[in-house]
Amino acid sequence: LRLKLTIQYDGTDFSGWQFQPGLRTIQGLLQDAVSAVEEVPTIVHGAGRTDAGVHALGQVGHVDVLKQHDPDTWVRAINAHLDRDVQVMAVSQVPDSFHARRSAIGKAYRYQVWTGAAVSPLVRHYVAHSRVRLDLERMREAARVLVGKHDFEAFTVTDRETKTTVRDLRRLEIVEEGDSLLSIQAEANGFLRAMVRTLAGTLMAIGDGRLELGSIEAALRERRRDLAGPTAPAAGLTLLRVDY
Amino acid sequence: LRLKLTIQYDGTDFSGWQFQPGLRTIQGLLQDAVSAVEEVPTIVHGAGRTDAGVHALGQVGHVDVLKQHDPDTWVRAINAHLDRDVQVMAVSQVPDSFHARRSAIGKAYRYQVWTGAAVSPLVRHYVAHSRVRLDLERMREAARVLVGKHDFEAFTVTDRETKTTVRDLRRLEIVEEGDSLLSIQAEANGFLRAMVRTLAGTLMAIGDGRLELGSIEAALRERRRDLAGPTAPAAGLTLLRVDY
Repeated sequence: LRLKLTIQYDGTDFSGWQFQPGLRTIQGLLQDAVSAVEEVPTIVHGAGRTDAGVHALGQVGHVDVLKQHDPDTWVRAINAHLDRDVQVMAVSQVPDSFHARRSAIGKAYRYQVWTGAAVSPLVRHYVAHSRVRLDLERMREAARVLVGKHDFEAFTVTDRETKTTVRDLRRLEIVEEGDSLLSIQAEANGFLRAMVRTLAGTLMAIGDGRLELGSIEAALRERRRDLAGPTAPAAGLTLLRVDY
Repeated sequence: LRLKLTIQYDGTDFSGWQFQPGLRTIQGLLQDAVSAVEEVPTIVHGAGRTDAGVHALGQVGHVDVLKQHDPDTWVRAINAHLDRDVQVMAVSQVPDSFHARRSAIGKAYRYQVWTGAAVSPLVRHYVAHSRVRLDLERMREAARVLVGKHDFEAFTVTDRETKTTVRDLRRLEIVEEGDSLLSIQAEANGFLRAMVRTLAGTLMAIGDGRLELGSIEAALRERRRDLAGPTAPAAGLTLLRVDY
């Protein structure tokens, strides 16, 4: 039977989601943990491959198992084999037609930017640091240009697996959380590789004046990566939710 | 001239506040950092000595310096010599009569308890874990008994430096933050050693039924440590604020 796993992780000490022999990856640890409970090798399929250093509060995976346990027992049994920086928060049984990646109809990410002079030690692994104050009004104007169904080729890296670079960016908002923390919140039907980090890097470059608004329109129109902003650091990014 | 420092730290990898030769302490790192900027040895006096593993979002210290810089320059210069898990968030000049510990008129702490089956990896260093659901109504009744001016000898550890064990606990509240996180918030004119952790451990023991309400009244009245609950783990505790 097929299980849906809701997964959280602190990506700081991981080489990303995807299994790679000899490296500490989230998929690798999860597969080892589920396999230990199942007593046979298993494959955990994720909704998406987060990069090294990226975090998750709502990653989703699926796995096929033979044993029968209630959801709470599964949570406890899998976590007993996991480190504290990756945990299964919930387990539910789903139909065999459910696929963590293919069934997903949307995803939500946040990208956190610390704007104060000193970064709070308690969030240091979960933010990028901007050493200058950012112009929120300019960033919000830029976000309004980016929202919508566009070809986001300028906001990704080359990836031969991707058939189309058109995505529907349903939401891109900049939320102030206290004096020194910005949360860039992005929702789409799906994201291209490095897309949220490039959107965040572009908004930050708009906010500190390195980039002009016109450049974003040109980047979308001409699909030229060099017209968009830099890819922001992985640490600021957290996968919040996968929708089905 | 005298500087007031507002300090944050993630206590996870520290042997507490107080300088001890050969150990990684917050006071030790701060003194090294200020001394490096001053180019002469300095002593940083803290508002209180937090234990190993305890965090701070608003610890306060004072230090006497000879150099003249504006506050932002001080912040940047000191932090340039600090690790990312301890940072000076603000610096201001204060009169020579200001003393971080003796001038304090109150302190605020929070103690965080995770009550879900799996602890969220992103807060794992900042919470204690209760494996059973806690009865909030019972905990709030207990908190009402504890609030006020009492002899808290039953809620501390022996400390010869302490003249009186009477403290005015002005606030003790249990705030739900989402589904699985409780924040026990405590404010007093001052706290005894391990007092917040013993208050938290007592409230948790009340919440999960290990301790009866009557035991708290008896602990206060008879000043017997064995009638209060256990000392809760350091990781859940964060010094939020020192008032002057």
